[in-house]
Amino acid sequence: ADVDAGKAKAAVCAACHGANGISVIPDYPNLAGQKVKYLQSAIKAYRDGERKNPIMSPMAAGLTDTDVENIAAYFASLPAGG
Amino acid sequence: ADVDAGKAKAAVCAACHGANGISVIPDYPNLAGQKVKYLQSAIKAYRDGERKNPIMSPMAAGLTDTDVENIAAYFASLPAGG
Repeated sequence: ADVDAGKAKAAVCAACHGANGISVIPDYPNLAGQKVKYLQSAIKAYRDGERKNPIMSPMAAGLTDTDVENIAAYFASLPAGG
Repeated sequence: ADVDAGKAKAAVCAACHGANGISVIPDYPNLAGQKVKYLQSAIKAYRDGERKNPIMSPMAAGLTDTDVENIAAYFASLPAGG
């Protein structure tokens, strides 16, 4: 996976999940240091409709599998706890 | 919330999510240091059917709101990254 490409693609995610992957909003999860495979499955769940959320579903809608891999690799690479 | 009661109730969770809240299985999320409100909403989503998962749904099925609060407080209290 390409962490830099993931970082670029994940720029929009920072608004809620924090620039360092520690969420700025208590209702939304921290992503920093999370498991890569879990992140991939969660993003795909929003993209493919298994999980429905008014914010995350549209966010994930246009992502390719490669985007998902890169974004997941990026957040997993961030130090847990910020 | 009662973190000790949460820890007791979460004993079964350690099998997948790790004794220190760092998952032993790459497909399952780390929970240590996660946001309390997010943890509550995720557990309730499994309990109330908004999220369907063959493992998590039965795990969450019998939990009271107090259980959910205590379990969420417990995992949130663990140091992120283990």
